[in-house]
Amino acid sequence: MPFQYNEYYNEQTGLTVGIKKQLFCEQTPYQLVEVFETDTWGNLMTIDGMVMLSEKDEFVYHEMMAHVALFSHPNPKKVLIIGGGDGGTAREVLRHPSVEHVDMVEIDEAVVRASKLHMPEVGDFDNPKLHVLYENGLTFVDGPENEYDVIIIDGSDPVGPAVDLFKKDFYEKCHRCLKADGVLVSQTESPFVESYHESMQSVFKACDELYPVTKMFLTFIPLYPTGMWSMLFASKGIDPLSKEVTSRIEAKIGTFADKLKYYNKDVHTGAFALPNFVKHIIQK
Amino acid sequence: MPFQYNEYYNEQTGLTVGIKKQLFCEQTPYQLVEVFETDTWGNLMTIDGMVMLSEKDEFVYHEMMAHVALFSHPNPKKVLIIGGGDGGTAREVLRHPSVEHVDMVEIDEAVVRASKLHMPEVGDFDNPKLHVLYENGLTFVDGPENEYDVIIIDGSDPVGPAVDLFKKDFYEKCHRCLKADGVLVSQTESPFVESYHESMQSVFKACDELYPVTKMFLTFIPLYPTGMWSMLFASKGIDPLSKEVTSRIEAKIGTFADKLKYYNKDVHTGAFALPNFVKHIIQK
Repeated sequence: MPFQYNEYYNEQTGLTVGIKKQLFCEQTPYQLVEVFETDTWGNLMTIDGMVMLSEKDEFVYHEMMAHVALFSHPNPKKVLIIGGGDGGTAREVLRHPSVEHVDMVEIDEAVVRASKLHMPEVGDFDNPKLHVLYENGLTFVDGPENEYDVIIIDGSDPVGPAVDLFKKDFYEKCHRCLKADGVLVSQTESPFVESYHESMQSVFKACDELYPVTKMFLTFIPLYPTGMWSMLFASKGIDPLSKEVTSRIEAKIGTFADKLKYYNKDVHTGAFALPNFVKHIIQK
Repeated sequence: MPFQYNEYYNEQTGLTVGIKKQLFCEQTPYQLVEVFETDTWGNLMTIDGMVMLSEKDEFVYHEMMAHVALFSHPNPKKVLIIGGGDGGTAREVLRHPSVEHVDMVEIDEAVVRASKLHMPEVGDFDNPKLHVLYENGLTFVDGPENEYDVIIIDGSDPVGPAVDLFKKDFYEKCHRCLKADGVLVSQTESPFVESYHESMQSVFKACDELYPVTKMFLTFIPLYPTGMWSMLFASKGIDPLSKEVTSRIEAKIGTFADKLKYYNKDVHTGAFALPNFVKHIIQK
């Protein structure tokens, strides 16, 4: 029997999605993982009642999480993804021919299982370059040193298990995991939702102190609160708006440009144009 | 007693806003005009059940509708706004010192009345340069020839009375109203909502035939369906991405930059960066 899924970001205000039926529901040791068949957005995964992705709009988030970082780096070979259990970010990373090895550190195997079962087009789990490790990303980053070209932090919202993904300690460890020309990208919530501002400010302040280059970029995500989503770009030196990077995009994107539904060279640059009210949040 | 307002753009999927109370409700000869006090977005105006603006997010829409056109034109003096009865677009237009005369042609005086009563910060109705005409925009454009520097079409969605604002006949008449270096901007709905694609394609095809320069730009609007909104830029020659225009923004914005919460030079340029799926819609 049809019903509606609601995610409120402010009191009684938020998103409503028409649901045909529930396809997956599991309370894991970490969180409640659900998949629903929706009326018009394909299958929808939620964690603890928060939208993670739908089959119809996931291309935006995953292309922006992967390609801004991967094209900015001159020669990305080894990539670490923290979270990202649905597999979409890894799928986009693996489109880059230079990539030899992707470690995807997902705490909850149920997320991977639900994605494989009910969103079979999202992940590229049979790719031999992809190594899925069911571990806690927060402690995983204690180990590696000077090992990764790119780190992508594809965690859920800063409530519950993901809250420490928004703290300085974690970004310090990531800095040590990255090579000397390393690049890091992370999702950092919606600038229109005031209750997220503290987490956003915490991440940007930490990275300003740790990395020579720290910038925010923005993307449209219809099923995330307010439709405006921010992401962090931090690097040990590479400027994502440099002529070097835009030339690289032009030179390299041709091999898979027809696979991309959102990202292109102009979108890469345009995403870093921040409205005044957004600048004010992270300059506080 | 609190309740919720819903606007569905696809079956049972859309926006939900927490409502404290209804402040205005009038079935006019044209449409149902309502204003609600919301939980977290200030007062909200709807027409025929579709969100027009909230006090909290209106700055985005109005700044982008006004400033992309007004900064692109070398010396805008006389401006025509079709619709826009809440007054927000006119308020932003009137920030430009070169503007001497604004005609705002709003079919429904109830929209103006509701805005003055319940959104007093939105309009600048006492400004002597603003001339509010309660007429039908579709027939108003039969009259003027070679008269306006800028036309802004700030109408509602392409259902009901606004449907003809998306047809070629109307854009032909606007072309005649514009001076030789004229600029036109119009709101053209969300690229993520497939039921709007036909209207979008109709407008862009018509303007491609009529104007030497036709481009789409995008903006984040949290309370509009999907949060991604498109706008049309058409001109008789001026390229909004030219060095001439970006230099003009730099030179002129200083006088009121501190009043702007969204628009700046980078946002102007970045807004024209279209994701691949959006390009495909208007290139069909």
